[in-house]
Amino acid sequence: DHYIICGFGRIGALICKEFAAKPLPFLVIEKHPEVHDKLHQEEYLHIRGDATEDETLLRAGIKRAKGLISVVTSDTENVYITLTARGLNPDLFILARSGEEGSEIKLKRAGANKVVSPYVIGGSRMAQAILRPNVVDFIEIATGREHLELQMEEILIPADSSFAGENLVSSGFRKETGVIIIGIKKAVGKMVFNPNPHAKMEANDTLIVLGEPAAIQKLEQLISCSNSAAAIIQKHKGEPTPHE
Amino acid sequence: DHYIICGFGRIGALICKEFAAKPLPFLVIEKHPEVHDKLHQEEYLHIRGDATEDETLLRAGIKRAKGLISVVTSDTENVYITLTARGLNPDLFILARSGEEGSEIKLKRAGANKVVSPYVIGGSRMAQAILRPNVVDFIEIATGREHLELQMEEILIPADSSFAGENLVSSGFRKETGVIIIGIKKAVGKMVFNPNPHAKMEANDTLIVLGEPAAIQKLEQLISCSNSAAAIIQKHKGEPTPHE
Ligand SMILES: [Ca+2]
Ligand SMILES: [Ca+2]
Repeated sequence: DHYIICGFGRIGALICKEFAAKPLPFLVIEKHPEVHDKLHQEEYLHIRGDATEDETLLRAGIKRAKGLISVVTSDTENVYITLTARGLNPDLFILARSGEEGSEIKLKRAGANKVVSPYVIGGSRMAQAILRPNVVDFIEIATGREHLELQMEEILIPADSSFAGENLVSSGFRKETGVIIIGIKKAVGKMVFNPNPHAKMEANDTLIVLGEPAAIQKLEQLISCSNSAAAIIQKHKGEPTPHE
Repeated sequence: DHYIICGFGRIGALICKEFAAKPLPFLVIEKHPEVHDKLHQEEYLHIRGDATEDETLLRAGIKRAKGLISVVTSDTENVYITLTARGLNPDLFILARSGEEGSEIKLKRAGANKVVSPYVIGGSRMAQAILRPNVVDFIEIATGREHLELQMEEILIPADSSFAGENLVSSGFRKETGVIIIGIKKAVGKMVFNPNPHAKMEANDTLIVLGEPAAIQKLEQLISCSNSAAAIIQKHKGEPTPHE
């Protein structure tokens, strides 16, 4: 139930930092001896070896891993690691980094579930910084850990939640916490954007929310605790649903 | 009133594509002869030369340019271009790409207004793709041109707008267009996140909005046309402001 991060370069190090902060269990595979000191210093669990080899991935527990992130520098090696990993575990979530143009399709063909290209994202971000500078600021604040005024988060509605079947108003979420719901990823897979106040939440839906981190935490507690759910729903029951 | 893009590598090419689609006037400076054919093919206005030299930047019209984007491969050259450009035009908006760790501070010291590091953004996006996969999907859809269901956009309230002084409900924006306002960058510079229905808009504020592209376009027209503004405000005048 852990994640395997292949490559402790600049991107690999950033991912480790985010996972350690969450925290999320992970293990690093790195073949370059000059990086091992830094891994040791950070006290990250790691294996010295080549992630393109079956044996190394097996030692890293790939059969029981939840996901693998392939972020070595070479596209060729990322494709090879993806192929090897997919062969050893068909259910693994594989996230890979694409460098050169054209490697994205090869990584997907090799079995990656998602491919991220830092150049494409960087170029797009730079264009947006000119075209829509305030939108870029907003996104950087909402997705960065360092800004405490705002966060964008996702919250699963558990299968047995009392909120399942309620709409956004009757749930009382906005009034209780001030958090706004900007999207609902339905259990069936479809994403509803800008849901209106009548939109119903169902079991196993995931809410995409925007709010202060403390308010989001309050909402997460509300949703995970079935006693408080009943009280909140009762409290907001009589309120009229606003018309759109 | 144009933009100067220094470097037509992978990131430079992506920025040109976005600018051409808007469209936004720009000119490329590129010193590598092997890239000139591609620039010619795309029919992008360009200068063959070295952007670290005063003479090249002057030929590109730096004195009357609105902004400069420095995206050559080498950090050293990006710093040098930034320094040269800042010396020639103190009011220019300079956006620069940072490659290696530590170059960000040097680019800012050289005079860059904003620095983007594709590695940092890429690493953060990859970590988020594991930690908050639905939030990442949402952001990719809201910021990508190819997805037509949702867009995140910014709209300036002009100085003479009839909407200045109205609050989010009395403006009728949500009811008329379905667009939601997730932030207000106040004219004074402060950003208000998740504004509540009572939040007032003032002249020169910028709204951060989320909605279907067609709905956003409708809202942009509404805001820019003062006749329709008066009618909309009149129409929604009697409606009660919901309590938070
Ligand atoms: Ca934040
Ligand atoms: Ca879009």
